[in-house]
Amino acid sequence: MRLSERVERRDFQGEFLDVILKAAADPSLISFAGGLPNPDSFPTEAVRAAVNKVFDEKGFNCLQYNAAEGYGPLRQKICDRYKATMGLDYSPEEIIITTGSQQAIDMFTACMIDEGDEMAVENPSYLAALQVFHHYGPKIHAIDLLSDGIDTEQLAEVLKTSNPKFMYIIPNFQNPTGLTYSEETRVKMAEIVKGSDMFILEDNPYGELRFQGQAGHSMAYFLPEQTCLVGTFSKIVAPGMRVGWIACKNKELLEKMAVYKSSMDLHTSIFDQMVINQFLEDNDLEAQVEKAKEIYRGKAQIMMDSIAEYCPEGVEYTKPEGGMFLWITLPEGMKAVDVQMEAIKKGVVVLAGDPFYEYDRDVRTMRVNYSRSTDEQMVTGMKIFGETIKSLM
Amino acid sequence: MRLSERVERRDFQGEFLDVILKAAADPSLISFAGGLPNPDSFPTEAVRAAVNKVFDEKGFNCLQYNAAEGYGPLRQKICDRYKATMGLDYSPEEIIITTGSQQAIDMFTACMIDEGDEMAVENPSYLAALQVFHHYGPKIHAIDLLSDGIDTEQLAEVLKTSNPKFMYIIPNFQNPTGLTYSEETRVKMAEIVKGSDMFILEDNPYGELRFQGQAGHSMAYFLPEQTCLVGTFSKIVAPGMRVGWIACKNKELLEKMAVYKSSMDLHTSIFDQMVINQFLEDNDLEAQVEKAKEIYRGKAQIMMDSIAEYCPEGVEYTKPEGGMFLWITLPEGMKAVDVQMEAIKKGVVVLAGDPFYEYDRDVRTMRVNYSRSTDEQMVTGMKIFGETIKSLM
Repeated sequence: MRLSERVERRDFQGEFLDVILKAAADPSLISFAGGLPNPDSFPTEAVRAAVNKVFDEKGFNCLQYNAAEGYGPLRQKICDRYKATMGLDYSPEEIIITTGSQQAIDMFTACMIDEGDEMAVENPSYLAALQVFHHYGPKIHAIDLLSDGIDTEQLAEVLKTSNPKFMYIIPNFQNPTGLTYSEETRVKMAEIVKGSDMFILEDNPYGELRFQGQAGHSMAYFLPEQTCLVGTFSKIVAPGMRVGWIACKNKELLEKMAVYKSSMDLHTSIFDQMVINQFLEDNDLEAQVEKAKEIYRGKAQIMMDSIAEYCPEGVEYTKPEGGMFLWITLPEGMKAVDVQMEAIKKGVVVLAGDPFYEYDRDVRTMRVNYSRSTDEQMVTGMKIFGETIKSLM
Repeated sequence: MRLSERVERRDFQGEFLDVILKAAADPSLISFAGGLPNPDSFPTEAVRAAVNKVFDEKGFNCLQYNAAEGYGPLRQKICDRYKATMGLDYSPEEIIITTGSQQAIDMFTACMIDEGDEMAVENPSYLAALQVFHHYGPKIHAIDLLSDGIDTEQLAEVLKTSNPKFMYIIPNFQNPTGLTYSEETRVKMAEIVKGSDMFILEDNPYGELRFQGQAGHSMAYFLPEQTCLVGTFSKIVAPGMRVGWIACKNKELLEKMAVYKSSMDLHTSIFDQMVINQFLEDNDLEAQVEKAKEIYRGKAQIMMDSIAEYCPEGVEYTKPEGGMFLWITLPEGMKAVDVQMEAIKKGVVVLAGDPFYEYDRDVRTMRVNYSRSTDEQMVTGMKIFGETIKSLM
């Protein structure tokens, strides 16, 4: 079988996930490994009402082919929301609807990166984004993520000594760490990036799910021309419909992306786009977001309390202000993969940090998802997890 | 702006379409340029019923993340249909659901082609597939399509002198020509390809829409291990939902595609997949397909009659046995682009054949879509089109 190099290339992330997902396929396990939103946050009946209204008002048009760029009224609503929640000015022509934010990352990367080009990511970063990047064969600079955001000194050094085409960041409740950039870090990053040739691809899947503290500015606020924003309805309406977007003020890139998008899948399901648009028209999104936040605020607290109670001294963890993840650092000398494999034997799945790093291996960090488990599962699971750590210390 | 070579490369197809689509944006024009199914064929109310049943039975599960490979029951139904209508044996594990067949073409190509690799297409071919291929930079062999299918002598020669990784074909009611491979051509093609290293990617968007004659065997019937089938619900249920698939018996390729698919958009809208699955469960697909066939049979006849009546002698056209297109050949010495531009001035859009060819330019062929226009538009449009040809002869 003669396959392409891009799929033959060894991808540590894929291999790692294969192992862990196979190990964790048993539904009797308590799993903190995934990243599923809690379905209690889904506005299921409101979406059903929206569907029926779409049929009433649009008839067969919700089933016909449509434009590659996406549904106009939905693009307008995304602009309105950017204005209202982030103080950003976009016009509908600057938005392309994508099949989830995952496709936006793939589309942007395809339009930017040739094999051997340089780019930068946070260290650690979202593993499904790393997998996309690997398909295009770039040289990746992994810049450390500190407790208040990206290491701006490292970033300045990278920009002085090399020429990355873009940097992928998740400044709010990052996946995997749950960390958020401080406003100071954002300002500093903008100063460093300004005037360079580097674009910023800012992903913000969890931004609306802030259950504590104050939001910082998007990089698009400081560098509107040099930033593309990736967004999604997955965490505030429904992930299963796969509706996301990219916002971009660079006309040349915008046009190239629209053409590329049409070659990817012609367009994103117009049915799903119209349903989400109708849902947004007929419902109070604030109330919907508030409901999701309440769920995650409570679950984050229970998870933090359980870690504090059951994990031995020396185990540290991030305290997320929003989103769905926190990040555990094991005591020095321990390996996350060892803890992961031992915990699975005892019925609990916590993901070792390894696949989130571009280069580092045998790390002592682990990602904990708190959005999908019951409160009881979190308490029981963390008790077992804490005992596992102790047994390996 | 530092873009990737893949989007900076000049793509004749894209440029050509830009010109024609801008020229044809006026809704007062009669257009035979597109490829939209006729919405009279959409089972709109049955889809609405299916949606509501999905909410009743699946609740929030239709809104949650799901598996990259697609929804199990839908993959099973695709296998059942292959068995019933084409005598092909597939198991659900050999099907990957994609976001329309367009994504299946992109996914397959990404897994097969590195820059400079050889591949083959029909000459002419589907232009949105050519656009996908161009993104991967292959050397393309364009093998002539004759009235009874691919030119098997040319194919044999290509396989003797070069080493294409795969060939993309649409053997039934091809886009753009409306032509169908004879059974003899299929058998001959299978003999030639057998034992070579070349894969066949067989696209079959219109196969179910046969309104005349007898279906030939799929290449998967002769060469099951060497063929991947691409399919779609766009023409038998609804295109706007973007649900297609690829069927593949090669395990290595299948696994690579599933991983690649997850990096493209995680998975295809599970909402749309469940709705189509429910529609198939509750409705008689035969009756639905029959309804679509009736519409297209009638429209094809009116289009052929109108061409015969209004186009001058020397204009030839294919007589499709199904699908949505026919293919006009102008008298020698004429250029299709001239006729196209002149006809637009007079209010009728017919697409010149040029963008469907990988290499040939200033051709005298044109694609005519007959699925979307009213009967009156076909008569009026062809009258104007015929007069345009006469005026340029």
